[in-house]
Amino acid sequence: MFMQNGSSLAENKRFEVRSLEISDYRKGFIQLLQQLTVCDSVSDEQFRERFEELKASGDDHVICVIEDGQSGKIIATGSVFVEKKFLRNCGKVGHIEDVVIDSNARGMQLGKKIVGFLTDHAHSRGCYKVILDCSVENRPFYEKCGFKQKEVQMVKYFI
Amino acid sequence: MFMQNGSSLAENKRFEVRSLEISDYRKGFIQLLQQLTVCDSVSDEQFRERFEELKASGDDHVICVIEDGQSGKIIATGSVFVEKKFLRNCGKVGHIEDVVIDSNARGMQLGKKIVGFLTDHAHSRGCYKVILDCSVENRPFYEKCGFKQKEVQMVKYFI
Repeated sequence: MFMQNGSSLAENKRFEVRSLEISDYRKGFIQLLQQLTVCDSVSDEQFRERFEELKASGDDHVICVIEDGQSGKIIATGSVFVEKKFLRNCGKVGHIEDVVIDSNARGMQLGKKIVGFLTDHAHSRGCYKVILDCSVENRPFYEKCGFKQKEVQMVKYFI
Repeated sequence: MFMQNGSSLAENKRFEVRSLEISDYRKGFIQLLQQLTVCDSVSDEQFRERFEELKASGDDHVICVIEDGQSGKIIATGSVFVEKKFLRNCGKVGHIEDVVIDSNARGMQLGKKIVGFLTDHAHSRGCYKVILDCSVENRPFYEKCGFKQKEVQMVKYFI
């Protein structure tokens, strides 16, 4: 069997990364996000509305998913958006957010695939860097993806 | 003299926070950013182009400044943009970036003013939280602004 980066061609086809589609609402996309944080049920209409809002940003805001070719379920996701700055000579920065891998699909390098896809996308959009915030526990994973710790994240909640 | 939050009315008027205007290019806005990080000279045309791009995002991407009413120079700035998510019931998150106070204007609570303005803006846009990344040295300042450390920031540079 031919191998690509340690994965078989069949596996690569089964776990292809692609952009979020509107039909992913019915394939467990929201349920997957619920594994990351608080996310009550989102109605079909709410989903459609936010989907269209994000689509308006074009390639400057991309959500990618992996659909398990066998089960038809969304088992991994992540997003990246491009921030336009004045500094760094009107530079651009990619922000990676909301990377989630289904708890039943760990150990198959899907996280690496998602982060690689999002990083490549930021690069292709002309960003000079890509950043993300993660827990201290997840730092080793992102180090394997080529990231280095730089600063600390501060947060203020309104609710 | 009447006092507002420890500042005189005259001081408040002198150091008012407002949105970036196209004429701020001539008031040292880029030079101020250069105090934060690498920022070669940005031409008038580049500035105008990026300004218009950001303007297209409306209230979802705001850059604020403080112009010293006496010198006519921009002495403080910061930006916030609103990220639209699916999680948290199609929630929104404010991202604060590029807060800079002129090194000659420290100790006048301008940083607090800028961060307060950006935080209030994120709140008014319906964000459930506002986040930012900073150095460990700047953590005490943001704690005074009501922020708490949560995660760590990871970065990957392309150049």
